[in-house]
Amino acid sequence: MIKAGIIGASGYTGGELLRLLLNHPDVEPVLATSRSLAGKPVTETHRHLLDFLDLEYENPGMDEVRERCDVVFLAVPHKTAMNYVPELLDGKTKVIDLSADYRLEDGIFEKVYEVEHTDPGRHAVYGLPELHPEVSGESFIANPGCFPTGASLAAAPLAKAGLVELAVFDSKTGISGAGFKPGATSHYPNLAENVIAYKLTSHRHRAEIFQELNRLDANLNNINFTPQVVPSIRGILTTAHLFMKDRVSAEEVQDIFRDFYRGKPFVRLVEGVPSLTAVRGTNFCDIGFEVDPVTGRVVVISAIDNLVKGASGQAVQNMNLMLGLDETRGLWFAAAAP
Amino acid sequence: MIKAGIIGASGYTGGELLRLLLNHPDVEPVLATSRSLAGKPVTETHRHLLDFLDLEYENPGMDEVRERCDVVFLAVPHKTAMNYVPELLDGKTKVIDLSADYRLEDGIFEKVYEVEHTDPGRHAVYGLPELHPEVSGESFIANPGCFPTGASLAAAPLAKAGLVELAVFDSKTGISGAGFKPGATSHYPNLAENVIAYKLTSHRHRAEIFQELNRLDANLNNINFTPQVVPSIRGILTTAHLFMKDRVSAEEVQDIFRDFYRGKPFVRLVEGVPSLTAVRGTNFCDIGFEVDPVTGRVVVISAIDNLVKGASGQAVQNMNLMLGLDETRGLWFAAAAP
Amino acid sequence: MIKAGIIGASGYTGGELLRLLLNHPDVEPVLATSRSLAGKPVTETHRHLLDFLDLEYENPGMDEVRERCDVVFLAVPHKTAMNYVPELLDGKTKVIDLSADYRLEDGIFEKVYEVEHTDPGRHAVYGLPELHPEVSGESFIANPGCFPTGASLAAAPLAKAGLVELAVFDSKTGISGAGFKPGATSHYPNLAENVIAYKLTSHRHRAEIFQELNRLDANLNNINFTPQVVPSIRGILTTAHLFMKDRVSAEEVQDIFRDFYRGKPFVRLVEGVPSLTAVRGTNFCDIGFEVDPVTGRVVVISAIDNLVKGASGQAVQNMNLMLGLDETRGLWFAAAAP
Amino acid sequence: MIKAGIIGASGYTGGELLRLLLNHPDVEPVLATSRSLAGKPVTETHRHLLDFLDLEYENPGMDEVRERCDVVFLAVPHKTAMNYVPELLDGKTKVIDLSADYRLEDGIFEKVYEVEHTDPGRHAVYGLPELHPEVSGESFIANPGCFPTGASLAAAPLAKAGLVELAVFDSKTGISGAGFKPGATSHYPNLAENVIAYKLTSHRHRAEIFQELNRLDANLNNINFTPQVVPSIRGILTTAHLFMKDRVSAEEVQDIFRDFYRGKPFVRLVEGVPSLTAVRGTNFCDIGFEVDPVTGRVVVISAIDNLVKGASGQAVQNMNLMLGLDETRGLWFAAAAP
Repeated sequence: MIKAGIIGASGYTGGELLRLLLNHPDVEPVLATSRSLAGKPVTETHRHLLDFLDLEYENPGMDEVRERCDVVFLAVPHKTAMNYVPELLDGKTKVIDLSADYRLEDGIFEKVYEVEHTDPGRHAVYGLPELHPEVSGESFIANPGCFPTGASLAAAPLAKAGLVELAVFDSKTGISGAGFKPGATSHYPNLAENVIAYKLTSHRHRAEIFQELNRLDANLNNINFTPQVVPSIRGILTTAHLFMKDRVSAEEVQDIFRDFYRGKPFVRLVEGVPSLTAVRGTNFCDIGFEVDPVTGRVVVISAIDNLVKGASGQAVQNMNLMLGLDETRGLWFAAAAP
Repeated sequence: MIKAGIIGASGYTGGELLRLLLNHPDVEPVLATSRSLAGKPVTETHRHLLDFLDLEYENPGMDEVRERCDVVFLAVPHKTAMNYVPELLDGKTKVIDLSADYRLEDGIFEKVYEVEHTDPGRHAVYGLPELHPEVSGESFIANPGCFPTGASLAAAPLAKAGLVELAVFDSKTGISGAGFKPGATSHYPNLAENVIAYKLTSHRHRAEIFQELNRLDANLNNINFTPQVVPSIRGILTTAHLFMKDRVSAEEVQDIFRDFYRGKPFVRLVEGVPSLTAVRGTNFCDIGFEVDPVTGRVVVISAIDNLVKGASGQAVQNMNLMLGLDETRGLWFAAAAP
Repeated sequence: MIKAGIIGASGYTGGELLRLLLNHPDVEPVLATSRSLAGKPVTETHRHLLDFLDLEYENPGMDEVRERCDVVFLAVPHKTAMNYVPELLDGKTKVIDLSADYRLEDGIFEKVYEVEHTDPGRHAVYGLPELHPEVSGESFIANPGCFPTGASLAAAPLAKAGLVELAVFDSKTGISGAGFKPGATSHYPNLAENVIAYKLTSHRHRAEIFQELNRLDANLNNINFTPQVVPSIRGILTTAHLFMKDRVSAEEVQDIFRDFYRGKPFVRLVEGVPSLTAVRGTNFCDIGFEVDPVTGRVVVISAIDNLVKGASGQAVQNMNLMLGLDETRGLWFAAAAP
Repeated sequence: MIKAGIIGASGYTGGELLRLLLNHPDVEPVLATSRSLAGKPVTETHRHLLDFLDLEYENPGMDEVRERCDVVFLAVPHKTAMNYVPELLDGKTKVIDLSADYRLEDGIFEKVYEVEHTDPGRHAVYGLPELHPEVSGESFIANPGCFPTGASLAAAPLAKAGLVELAVFDSKTGISGAGFKPGATSHYPNLAENVIAYKLTSHRHRAEIFQELNRLDANLNNINFTPQVVPSIRGILTTAHLFMKDRVSAEEVQDIFRDFYRGKPFVRLVEGVPSLTAVRGTNFCDIGFEVDPVTGRVVVISAIDNLVKGASGQAVQNMNLMLGLDETRGLWFAAAAP
């Protein structure tokens, strides 16, 4: 069995990593770290894992982590991962960083996250495997943000075709993306029966979306993003309003998407409109679209589970590819719907 | 007391009309019609009105309605109101039609609703009082749709200023707009923990939004609209992504909105992002905005209660103006938040 | 106009008091205190009251409060009110304490709340007006807890008739009862799609329920209470499983309830099962029941809004009675359903 | 691979059976029947199973079903299963009936379900494996109801110990138990922000609970049950208020539960109060309890997923036992929490 460790295992993405790895036939979680919870059973915070896991939280040094683990997931906050990564990368240990620290070019990172990068110049492959097949065989991956996963997958085929002039991503997310720590937005009376728009024009994930789409079409610069929290635990529904340089037909769009996602098992092109229900708890990104007969706009809808395809599931998919396993290994299960 | 009647009183907008009229110091509901429920107490279907109302549903002819009522609300389905209106309009009775039948020009109506208009050529004032002060003194009003109310109010000031080149309205609505009849979209297991996008490019309300904004700026034609249902009972949060011809500053936008909505008591310009919680059950439209420093887009957010400002509350506001009353009469109460 | 002040106005019950008083024809809120927010506009925290209220939070001494207010509501935490009450009671100012400090006999209070009472021996009338008509004309009222309001009203008629041998109150509450401060229970991912039972056998509100029912029937001692939080903002549905000494018929129960609540405008006896929807935002307590043909148990269901009849609405009802006004004054409005 | 068929596969329990069987290493679903949908792809209704399943709905005769399947699940409505069962039972095919038709003794069934039993006298083992180890090796099983599963598991240990005098089961269920067909109770505006109590004293599941507990203690007859729907898709939280003949200590209760559920992998005794979140999508029944120091009542809380342990998961657990497989086969996965 391949041995996996999770740095910062007490949060939601840590819990999902544990759930998915426990379900994986070739990997077992052997290490879960938490500074503040060291010594406590992991199931004390992740109660749903009771009877599945005997680990206690630990707080070892990075050299011990390297020694005990074949693959290490960093599920720590942004600006923290870069403190651990340099010590972990020994050329042998596979490292998957779920934080934002290595997703962007240094200069852009420092501007967007308003912090100095303490490990500049290090290259990580951006772990959106449907757009970055070079993940296979790599030993260091920057796992994408949740919004960029849904947004980039919605727009990439048309961007790559050079058709898009202006993109507006209007995303609706469940609240689990904000983490397990209670706050004003996650306070039930504030969120229930409400929609909470935030960072209308300045969310940091725009930089990632821009990087991915602009990489596919260097002329595509007018990229807009606004997130909203809806009363749901999980899921991101992204409504991509894509304005075309020239009119396209539904058939052309259909062909472009089919070609682009051929052989990508986790992207399902659906008839009609995708639903969060159909992807909940899974690693799928379901995509549907419609062409506006009036303005020519193409509306693409993508649906993901923010904690799975938007975080921990994608990390396991990356791990599979890094280890030379089938990318669906341990991830090929359907949603418990409804 | 002014006597009010409601044609088609058994639905959600009928119930809200009754609640609001019962709260109105100058008006009393004297007639509630329903074909299928005639003879039954109104409180049998509107159980929350128990002890407030002694009416039974009736099914009288329109001449009797005219005789018994000073003001009549039509809360019947689209394509049905036009069967009643001609008989009701006697020059004396005030008539407010909450259906879509008289909101659009005949030709556009017939195209959008795919039905022949059986009462063509009749003029109704479009009852969005913040944009149509001519409501005052009128005797026949077409009450706007719920989405167009939120969208038009969000964009009107900038449209009137001739600044908008392209508008994308991405609206999130509670499910009560779909009515009291159970269906697939309102089925709890389908809607909870989900976001249901529908009619991505073809919702009929676009025609109304177009009519209102294009009226304010004849050059503004690129108007896009996509609705989504979120897991909430009430409320529409509209995210208006407005692309400007030229860059504008936040201060300019602020001034334009302040000037436009000066003296309009039901539009509140808020600091930060509006919330559905703050307007629930009320006739307010709360509006906030942000200017995108990267692309120049102005993101305007409007929040309304779809059953109040988006339907019955606006109808009462129109009634007040038609009757020469203060437009806030009976409507000046705050939300029960949270 | 009667002048009202609220000590501790920044929380949910403070917000509801403001909303209700703003709607009251004879009273106006003139003072809202908050230690930590002094100097800030009240509408900064209660955003739904924008354009209704010009007050800033203040932090005056109690003698100033007495001077400026005819009636004072204490919406401060338990164990805090008793610090203010002695200074406020001057025989002239009407004082309504929404905390638990004066609801129970001193000895019982100290045992249940595990704190010394610093103002022992002072008598307050228990402000459940349907059970305590002596509220009228009083100048100091202890406003009941939310659970006890729903539970006591459900069981009082049968208790007073001496019929009940054993009572199990299984209550389901919305989360707003826990206040505006985020915490683990109110964290959306914890509460949504869940039911959170807590203090299964030891909730402090049992003491109040016991006090009220045992007062009506000194032999009724077997009183059990278990609360649960359900995914809702407002509302308490109490399922009272009442085991009778001897079999009773549905007709007998119906008569007992009708007689008991005759002339009590805020208790509505409904056919079928009460619904939180019908009381949301209002001061009603809706009650329905069924007699178990197998075991003779009477199941009584009561529905209230925890922030209104369970707190601020009841406080205003008490204020009305204390001031000699009709008890429905400012409170006679129906729910905005759905 | 063992071949499985599902009669009536288009509903929620059918969908869950498919999901679970697709996840099962030894079984494959080969037949999904539906009269009304025959000829249509199963994934047209169960969209979450897209790319997992190639089946179309069929409508074969029972002899063909027997021929093609080693094990058959009946997921048809009550009163329908008894039309299929006689033809399916050939001594070889394993049959698991998820309907109520064979759960109760004939006479009791006819009284409770108010219908004549057309296949009287046939014996089925009641498939609650924790209480009925005789499931192993059987070829015909009556799968329990959702409420009885949670209620019986909560009370069985103390019932078997002969300690219980009176039991009140107050259950809170998600709405998926009502099926995929929209109706008034599942209508989002009716259920959200509400708790819907129903059949306060007359739910048919009481007969099953009575059967199971009375079997364990013939003197235990005072069994009461009231169900409520809460705003959730899945899950049943049962609050069992158990009144003891004599006082018991928490330690005694703990020992009784531990002994009773030793070796039962799907019952987890948790510290504190169980949560629906921890069992969602899984076959677990989590149980916690507290002893009331005042009245001696024992409050036991059980949490299950109504569609899994309350229906399809339990059916697969029964299948495993009938086939001589480990009962956890294909079912040993943790919840996707939160």
